[in-house]
Amino acid sequence: MIPILRARTLDFEAGGTMVATINKNFAEDYDIHSLDRIRVTLGAQSMIVLVNVTEFQVSYDQIGFFREVWDELSIRNNEEVSIEPIAKPLALDAIKKKLDGEELVKEEIFDIIKNAVDNTLSSVELATFVSAIYTRGMTVGEIANLTKAMVSFGDKLSFGKKIVVDKHSVGGVAGNRTTPLVVSIVAAGGLTIPKLSSRAISSPAGTADTMEVFAPVSLPSHELKKIVKKVGACIAWGGALKIASADDELIRIRHPMKLDPEALLLSSIMAKKKAAGSNVVLIDIPFGEGSKVQYSGLAKHLARQFELLGKALNMHVSVIITDGSQPIGNGIGPALEAIDVLKVLMGNDGPTDLRDKSVRLAGRILEMGGKAPKGKGEVLAKQLLDSKKAYKKFKEIIKAQGGNPEIKPKDIRVGEFSIAVKAARAGTVSSISSKALSSVCRAAGAPRDREAGAYLHKHVEDRVKKGETILTIYAGVEHKLERAITTYKMLPETIVIS
Amino acid sequence: MIPILRARTLDFEAGGTMVATINKNFAEDYDIHSLDRIRVTLGAQSMIVLVNVTEFQVSYDQIGFFREVWDELSIRNNEEVSIEPIAKPLALDAIKKKLDGEELVKEEIFDIIKNAVDNTLSSVELATFVSAIYTRGMTVGEIANLTKAMVSFGDKLSFGKKIVVDKHSVGGVAGNRTTPLVVSIVAAGGLTIPKLSSRAISSPAGTADTMEVFAPVSLPSHELKKIVKKVGACIAWGGALKIASADDELIRIRHPMKLDPEALLLSSIMAKKKAAGSNVVLIDIPFGEGSKVQYSGLAKHLARQFELLGKALNMHVSVIITDGSQPIGNGIGPALEAIDVLKVLMGNDGPTDLRDKSVRLAGRILEMGGKAPKGKGEVLAKQLLDSKKAYKKFKEIIKAQGGNPEIKPKDIRVGEFSIAVKAARAGTVSSISSKALSSVCRAAGAPRDREAGAYLHKHVEDRVKKGETILTIYAGVEHKLERAITTYKMLPETIVIS
Repeated sequence: MIPILRARTLDFEAGGTMVATINKNFAEDYDIHSLDRIRVTLGAQSMIVLVNVTEFQVSYDQIGFFREVWDELSIRNNEEVSIEPIAKPLALDAIKKKLDGEELVKEEIFDIIKNAVDNTLSSVELATFVSAIYTRGMTVGEIANLTKAMVSFGDKLSFGKKIVVDKHSVGGVAGNRTTPLVVSIVAAGGLTIPKLSSRAISSPAGTADTMEVFAPVSLPSHELKKIVKKVGACIAWGGALKIASADDELIRIRHPMKLDPEALLLSSIMAKKKAAGSNVVLIDIPFGEGSKVQYSGLAKHLARQFELLGKALNMHVSVIITDGSQPIGNGIGPALEAIDVLKVLMGNDGPTDLRDKSVRLAGRILEMGGKAPKGKGEVLAKQLLDSKKAYKKFKEIIKAQGGNPEIKPKDIRVGEFSIAVKAARAGTVSSISSKALSSVCRAAGAPRDREAGAYLHKHVEDRVKKGETILTIYAGVEHKLERAITTYKMLPETIVIS
Repeated sequence: MIPILRARTLDFEAGGTMVATINKNFAEDYDIHSLDRIRVTLGAQSMIVLVNVTEFQVSYDQIGFFREVWDELSIRNNEEVSIEPIAKPLALDAIKKKLDGEELVKEEIFDIIKNAVDNTLSSVELATFVSAIYTRGMTVGEIANLTKAMVSFGDKLSFGKKIVVDKHSVGGVAGNRTTPLVVSIVAAGGLTIPKLSSRAISSPAGTADTMEVFAPVSLPSHELKKIVKKVGACIAWGGALKIASADDELIRIRHPMKLDPEALLLSSIMAKKKAAGSNVVLIDIPFGEGSKVQYSGLAKHLARQFELLGKALNMHVSVIITDGSQPIGNGIGPALEAIDVLKVLMGNDGPTDLRDKSVRLAGRILEMGGKAPKGKGEVLAKQLLDSKKAYKKFKEIIKAQGGNPEIKPKDIRVGEFSIAVKAARAGTVSSISSKALSSVCRAAGAPRDREAGAYLHKHVEDRVKKGETILTIYAGVEHKLERAITTYKMLPETIVIS
């Protein structure tokens, strides 16, 4: 019999994991070890937590609870708590099995994801799982189960439509802000597209950051549904919802080691689409030096995996491989990208490459969604853009999400401190590095300073004269502008003229 | 420029890792992420710590330090602290490289171990390293470097002798307390044997726990040296010294997933021997059902690995494969094992199997250490035991470590609550499970209650009558005796009669 303990509410976060702290001597007496699991019960409530063993923090008859646990159980100081050791979950055996190179069955994968979402797997256990997937890989069947598990243990949306479309760009290309354009075009074409986007993690802007220049993007799911029902589309921040939240747990673990196992890349993307109710999805894989996918062989392999996974998930998935060797559009950073988007929609002097790429993606989705015959999608997309129907749809979306639909490019504020970078010699632009340009924009303050970033005056193969402006850097505060200039000087690969 | 922050001393342990907590908004502004590394400087002191990002714990201009950091730096509340982000250590690239299946060079392995000892690798990073070794394995050259690194970043002992011997049993066999006997015999034979032993982790007694029945085992290294110089031997607790402390870090990570990669098993054992100054080592690998090594093929493979590793480390390593299919000796638990040891040394009615095995091991070490010609070691060992020279040496060791050398078996207290388990039928003992017997003894309170445990009256192949006592269980408190009986009833494999 384990005696009753007195609760001590430790005003401390455990980083999301459910943890209780017990005294070292108590742990030894009752043969409980650090990272064992116990069920804690107080009154009618109970939950499973991980054990942390301490010498000083709590006394022999106390149990300390981190903020995450007492938030969940509403524990008060000195309340009586009973504890009971519980067997390790099936998930640990399954993780070991994967580490040994064996294929996991559905139940095992579901158990791991359930425990990850419940926060009852420790960082060590999750890191072992990520390492196992990284070294051993996963079959398409396993990835499909992983995707289904992420969908299953998270919130789901549904829109009561036979066809719900979506798009995703694998990323890494600066300024590649096609999403607001694609969404406006395909929704103007009559398709339902409830777009959930992310904020930037390591880039100068995510779609959600750019869209936030126009309207709020943190929308609760009931509002999101209302908006999609009314205008056929939204451009919201996915992080505000608890969709495929296991993925967030895994990203937290993957970050320090920069581990990006293919199975997690694929399941992460597809789980978010499936949970958002989409069944027709276009994946854009930009490839080229500086983008996430650097080799055409890898791009083709990923394309095939996405299509196979789509079949296993009963979804219509198509992949388009695009040029990711240089930035798309001119603006980089939330406000500067928003200006590009608005200009393309309004039909005046927006960047041609951004416009062309968006038309191409939207055309393909219109075909997949049955709004255009095969080969005719791009023509329809162009019509929807040229006729301003897409612009009208974008204004509807802005209005529905609570922004000002009448906003004009000149209303969008950019950083008041700026510097024009001039060409040191005449010649032809031979390369522009997305990665280096992103570092410059982040040094300037993007994405947190929305008005920070850079404007690219030239693209690859453009001729430049000596002293001509090739880049303007914007920042909201002077010292960040200086930091951005220093960064630019340290990265000569940003814009190469030869 | 990152502004000066004010220290906040958080009265909290981070579990050994060096961690500082900064505010979420501050982290975003200065592009610092959770688990990044920063150098913190206050006054003339500085150290590298891992970053923890928090929403509530500290305000924008504060930096919170966990107990481990402020113990080390003697920080006070509100002191001014400057911070500077630092590049990730080479160690992270090396861990990733191992995960990709490549061989690590010396510098990479040294870097990982150095960071593990400095507590600047997070649990996620260390777990990835352990997983990488588990899935990819290591060459003998890598294991040798790992061993050298563990030795290098820890304390070392030396005794100014040409030959310093040691022994190690791979473990898992209940009651297998040969160490005090082997040490006494070989030291009586004129060899230097500074034995560092461990306490029990999951077994009912470690050698250190048993030896503590006779004398203190937590000895500082200067005292240890004095004792070894005087009597040629010691039997101390290795954990009191900071020898190969990287191993303790790795064990903490390996525990929850029960990962026991071969490279870590080998390097852990050899690093402790090498750091303790030994150059002649006998490894005992008991194999059989219930012991750690269950198959003879694995035992032979491990033997070969130990010998190769010995060569790479310039040490004379020999391996002996012994029977691990049933417990050795009669007593299990610190006090009961101590009684067995003392009886064998004093020459009266000690368990024959324990005596025979100890003579065999000691004989081999006497040969390796040049005190007996090949094939004659056992005879010498037997002489040293029968002539009571080994007993005399053991008394010298007890005295030198501060215990009572005149202690007799009857002076050793065993648990006052006991129960005799009777044979339910007549027949022959066909098997005894070390694992099950260990569970029973741990339920009775061992190793924390030194007097708890069990006494085995029969061994495999012994005939028993119905109702004859086959096992006596001892406990210091009544409810633990009941728990032990319940455990025994749940484990019918403990002693099987057929």
